[in-house]
Amino acid sequence: MGMVGGGLDAFIGAVHRKAAALDGEIELVCGAFSSDPEKSRATGRALYLPEQRVYESYEQMFRSEKLLPEGERMDFVSIVTPNHVHFAPAKAALENGFHVMLDKPLSFSFKEAKLLKALVDKTGLMFGLTHTYTGYPMIKEARHLVRTGALGKVRKIYVEYPQGWLSTPLEMTGQKQSAWRTDPARSGKSGCMGDIGTHCENLVEFVTGLKINELCADLNTVVEGRQLDDDGSVLLRFEGGATGILMATQVAAGEMNALRLRVYGEKGGLDWHQEFPNQLKIKWLDKPMEILQTGSPFLTSTAAAKNTRYPAGHPEGYGEAFANLYRNFALNLRARFNGIAPDPDLADVPTVEEGLRGMAFIETLIKSTASKNKWTKMIE
Amino acid sequence: MGMVGGGLDAFIGAVHRKAAALDGEIELVCGAFSSDPEKSRATGRALYLPEQRVYESYEQMFRSEKLLPEGERMDFVSIVTPNHVHFAPAKAALENGFHVMLDKPLSFSFKEAKLLKALVDKTGLMFGLTHTYTGYPMIKEARHLVRTGALGKVRKIYVEYPQGWLSTPLEMTGQKQSAWRTDPARSGKSGCMGDIGTHCENLVEFVTGLKINELCADLNTVVEGRQLDDDGSVLLRFEGGATGILMATQVAAGEMNALRLRVYGEKGGLDWHQEFPNQLKIKWLDKPMEILQTGSPFLTSTAAAKNTRYPAGHPEGYGEAFANLYRNFALNLRARFNGIAPDPDLADVPTVEEGLRGMAFIETLIKSTASKNKWTKMIE
Amino acid sequence: MGMVGGGLDAFIGAVHRKAAALDGEIELVCGAFSSDPEKSRATGRALYLPEQRVYESYEQMFRSEKLLPEGERMDFVSIVTPNHVHFAPAKAALENGFHVMLDKPLSFSFKEAKLLKALVDKTGLMFGLTHTYTGYPMIKEARHLVRTGALGKVRKIYVEYPQGWLSTPLEMTGQKQSAWRTDPARSGKSGCMGDIGTHCENLVEFVTGLKINELCADLNTVVEGRQLDDDGSVLLRFEGGATGILMATQVAAGEMNALRLRVYGEKGGLDWHQEFPNQLKIKWLDKPMEILQTGSPFLTSTAAAKNTRYPAGHPEGYGEAFANLYRNFALNLRARFNGIAPDPDLADVPTVEEGLRGMAFIETLIKSTASKNKWTKMIE
Amino acid sequence: MGMVGGGLDAFIGAVHRKAAALDGEIELVCGAFSSDPEKSRATGRALYLPEQRVYESYEQMFRSEKLLPEGERMDFVSIVTPNHVHFAPAKAALENGFHVMLDKPLSFSFKEAKLLKALVDKTGLMFGLTHTYTGYPMIKEARHLVRTGALGKVRKIYVEYPQGWLSTPLEMTGQKQSAWRTDPARSGKSGCMGDIGTHCENLVEFVTGLKINELCADLNTVVEGRQLDDDGSVLLRFEGGATGILMATQVAAGEMNALRLRVYGEKGGLDWHQEFPNQLKIKWLDKPMEILQTGSPFLTSTAAAKNTRYPAGHPEGYGEAFANLYRNFALNLRARFNGIAPDPDLADVPTVEEGLRGMAFIETLIKSTASKNKWTKMIE
Repeated sequence: MGMVGGGLDAFIGAVHRKAAALDGEIELVCGAFSSDPEKSRATGRALYLPEQRVYESYEQMFRSEKLLPEGERMDFVSIVTPNHVHFAPAKAALENGFHVMLDKPLSFSFKEAKLLKALVDKTGLMFGLTHTYTGYPMIKEARHLVRTGALGKVRKIYVEYPQGWLSTPLEMTGQKQSAWRTDPARSGKSGCMGDIGTHCENLVEFVTGLKINELCADLNTVVEGRQLDDDGSVLLRFEGGATGILMATQVAAGEMNALRLRVYGEKGGLDWHQEFPNQLKIKWLDKPMEILQTGSPFLTSTAAAKNTRYPAGHPEGYGEAFANLYRNFALNLRARFNGIAPDPDLADVPTVEEGLRGMAFIETLIKSTASKNKWTKMIE
Repeated sequence: MGMVGGGLDAFIGAVHRKAAALDGEIELVCGAFSSDPEKSRATGRALYLPEQRVYESYEQMFRSEKLLPEGERMDFVSIVTPNHVHFAPAKAALENGFHVMLDKPLSFSFKEAKLLKALVDKTGLMFGLTHTYTGYPMIKEARHLVRTGALGKVRKIYVEYPQGWLSTPLEMTGQKQSAWRTDPARSGKSGCMGDIGTHCENLVEFVTGLKINELCADLNTVVEGRQLDDDGSVLLRFEGGATGILMATQVAAGEMNALRLRVYGEKGGLDWHQEFPNQLKIKWLDKPMEILQTGSPFLTSTAAAKNTRYPAGHPEGYGEAFANLYRNFALNLRARFNGIAPDPDLADVPTVEEGLRGMAFIETLIKSTASKNKWTKMIE
Repeated sequence: MGMVGGGLDAFIGAVHRKAAALDGEIELVCGAFSSDPEKSRATGRALYLPEQRVYESYEQMFRSEKLLPEGERMDFVSIVTPNHVHFAPAKAALENGFHVMLDKPLSFSFKEAKLLKALVDKTGLMFGLTHTYTGYPMIKEARHLVRTGALGKVRKIYVEYPQGWLSTPLEMTGQKQSAWRTDPARSGKSGCMGDIGTHCENLVEFVTGLKINELCADLNTVVEGRQLDDDGSVLLRFEGGATGILMATQVAAGEMNALRLRVYGEKGGLDWHQEFPNQLKIKWLDKPMEILQTGSPFLTSTAAAKNTRYPAGHPEGYGEAFANLYRNFALNLRARFNGIAPDPDLADVPTVEEGLRGMAFIETLIKSTASKNKWTKMIE
Repeated sequence: MGMVGGGLDAFIGAVHRKAAALDGEIELVCGAFSSDPEKSRATGRALYLPEQRVYESYEQMFRSEKLLPEGERMDFVSIVTPNHVHFAPAKAALENGFHVMLDKPLSFSFKEAKLLKALVDKTGLMFGLTHTYTGYPMIKEARHLVRTGALGKVRKIYVEYPQGWLSTPLEMTGQKQSAWRTDPARSGKSGCMGDIGTHCENLVEFVTGLKINELCADLNTVVEGRQLDDDGSVLLRFEGGATGILMATQVAAGEMNALRLRVYGEKGGLDWHQEFPNQLKIKWLDKPMEILQTGSPFLTSTAAAKNTRYPAGHPEGYGEAFANLYRNFALNLRARFNGIAPDPDLADVPTVEEGLRGMAFIETLIKSTASKNKWTKMIE
């Protein structure tokens, strides 16, 4: 694996590297870690990489790696730059024949998203998008329960993602994470919804398989002087008749990372909270509530089991969820190299389709917020 | 106290009676418990009431009680009939000079609500409405924290009330509670929202003191064949700029009575759940999360303390919350009889104003649901 | 019902009165509320009792009430005095033919306990002891699950009762509740164990039906200058081979009233916490953990159902648990008056036997603490 | 790093490898993964190791690695064999000049433990013991709070570790994990206490710094036919006067890995549960209960911060706790190589002293269980 972005001071780069390293299936062999060549070199040194595999730009990396013999050159590239630098390196990677793992969201704009989708389709290369929360074992179990009908026909879907870290104008203090996320030139049309709202949309569709048909959005900028939305509430209507609510906010003072999903069907409901990811509550209409646990032998989903590392009671977390995306991507890639079919239980890594869907969602939110009409159809 | 409604097979009548009895401040002295005289008499016997104080109709009760000497006749009447029989007995009580405690919602229609409001204003009699959840000590504490600015200016308000008991067409089986609640002729224009959505609206305004300015509603009838809404989601805009979401549903299969309120201000947020009513979570922007407890000496609200019966760690529940409304109504009434000012800590019993507000809320929900426009102003 | 003790400033007297009043089955008709006649009279006035039924002493009360015609005189007496004033009024009541409800523990000493037991046996009168925690619906359910073998043969029993309110020498400040509880002349041989350790012992035997055979105790006085134990840990061995731990402490700074019971059998375990009394966790060996809820239709125990007032999700608490003891005592008494068999589901009110058992437990703890031997047989 | 043990079918070997890999500071370069050379080779292949660095025995590995040039040869060895194969490879490693990371417990017997301790003292080599639970950030915070006196003088310590997986005679079915753990020839004198009781003892002393002075143990073999204890309860007395309880059991049917620590001082208490490791409850005597969170800026311990990878709300788990031990060991080793002082915040990796203490604890438990005396002094 090579890496684009992820210099020493970038939070998410280190997360990707740990995730890739955890299972011993992926080796970081090269990188273009920063647009500043000196920074890139310093990062390479800290990561014990050989000097000649640390590049000054991603363009240089793709050119050089391509010339290396198979087996030596990187098998895929992980792109972990801010949103406005997703499209160009991803496009370049695909055009140079490299498979891609990309930090979400897919791109800066819906237009870019459609171009990338077309390029992936054309090249036939593998493309993964790190919607981390799909990597949790209990989300696999939730998906399995809903999709096998254990809860009956889905009626109501509630997803919420309250954070509090942008309750003050943090970006004015020079804090890096907030600076690019609140800057339309780097983040795109939406702040909060692009950052965390898309996780909600993705999680809902991942678990239920239902697509949002139309929505009614109310995005807000709560902190004065901020340029993008830092909060939003959305009414949802799904294909097949289910309805629901999506809430994402970054001004819920005191909240950390409280992503929560609830899905109610005719027979029961499920309830999952990211800060306590190893428990999945199932509330039944006709029997007592159950608490399912990561690693438990009583789960119904083989995908849950295959994405679990420790016995029940040994808590797994965000790191393992992230690592599941990388490991599964790597194992699917290996299956492809070996000409065999990938394990269907590992085949659910979000890809360019989910990424395009996310960008369409943002586009629709912006349109709905500007509209006086209650309902806005999802843009395609 | 006299009672209208609350025959032996009525759930809520017994709840009101226990609530009134708990503190030894209120004695049930008479009743017209049913429109069926025999049922009324049977109820009176079961409650050890003297035969001559058990009446065949509320009209007869008001007429007869009025003739009794002061000190012997009932001091106020508690009306616990279904929604469509709120207006007439309440009107008659007021016109006969009796103070009134009424089960929520205030009335069958918005029009009736306005008439009752005018009548209360004209007579100057006391009027209480049993929005039970305002009786919880931790709701008093929440109200105090918000209103004294401990959380800073309020930005976001989320209130939800998922129940699951109407997930099936229960009313077709003859189950009494569901039958009248889903019948437009007895319940009014709204099912779910009239029954539990109004509790949400009331709780939000009770705690924050902020009024809903406009809203965007999506009411649904999920169970086939049902005549009224059994589910709804509402986007809210408050005076002063706060926004939020109100959700109420009776088809969240597996849920019991999961009313939850979250309010976030500039400095922190509060989180309260009716099924665990003795804990109030406070999430701060600048210090660790705290858990406040009913009966704890560390609460800031004297109203919370005065509405608590046991030391911290001895859980109080729905019964005590309900009893607080009755006890406070009775103590306020006694203060009035004694010509002294009521204790301000007990003076927050919801009254006809809150009832009118609730009926306006329902009216607005219906209007918004029918509208293609996103926002609908609250009707006044 | 008449009452001995429970003057206006006594905490537990008011609790008993509310408990007795809640269900409208018991009327307080007379009392000797204090050894100070003026205090007794003031209490009677506050409770709206007729002057002639407020007595200067319990002796006077028993004498006078006995002379009243049946139907008018009190049917039973509730005794709510401190431990050292349990024996004499209970004895006098029984000797005068009155049924008795008594605040726990049974008596000041083991010797008194045996005398009371003999007197109850001799008179054949009804005798109830307010081990409040047995009144919770989920404790009824736990009892039913264990006793019907749902958990398999019981292997391990853990009961704990941490409180923190005596972490400082509160009794030196004149605080009344702590003063008598830490005074050997009023409380008996044990402080913490007499006050809350006996609740543990009682709860364990109530739920499991297993008797403690021998124990190994380590009682401590943690706060300097205190005269009685304020803390203790006990290893337990039960008849039939189960073992366990009992912990009770009043110096666990920050704890409120955290009584918790866990019972593990061959097939699963149960876990109940008094501060969240409406949930009962069942952890199974061969299926997912379940959470049972007060009022749920999925409970197995008809006794649980009959001791529940509200639908699931309307939390019941300490007050209702206490009221269940009074209501069941009253209903059993009425059955006796009517010459019919009491409902077996209501027949589990702790009585003089449980009281004697508790006093034997205290006696054994004291003996074990003084002993160098590991195991001490339960005294009989 | 080289590894002894940890063949493909060994659970704990993979855990160690993931832990070592997570932070990119440690590279697995060689191994003797099994006493069966073919198995060792197969493991080496699966781990992508060069053939010549996969050895047939640990003796061969130490001999061969020693001959490699510094920088190429392994810097330390990780030993992950069952208890009865701890001593010999650890001794050989030390004698060959290799630093050692060893899976707990230290050894098969107390005698071996003392020999290892002497050898570590003599060689001056670094020695780490994977008492995993000390690696959790909130345990660092707990340690800091207790040791800086935030809770006041410690009075009560409760530690418990219920598991349920040995509720049936699993070892009779050929299940590997249970087979060696219940076999005195491989596990040592104690089953449950050696396996998980030592974690309790270690955690208590790690957090509080208080040493157990004497104890009273009741170890049991609950499942018929089992050769070692599968359950035990212990009363504890600490230096300085604190007392407490240690419970560990493997027959609490339905429990997973529910290690919990509570420490109460004069000013407050702390409560930590391994299955929810990112929360630390602090219950105060003079203010509301607080919930501290991994990654929160409001923690007082710099060690907690340095052992945290993600922002608050991104749950870390068992894997990260384990990885903290490896990373800190590696960073301390690097500091030693570089001749600089290690970061004191990373210097708390349990070592041979804690290991010796654990073996003394087991020895004392066995002695106490066999004794009729209540108290047994800790063996030194």
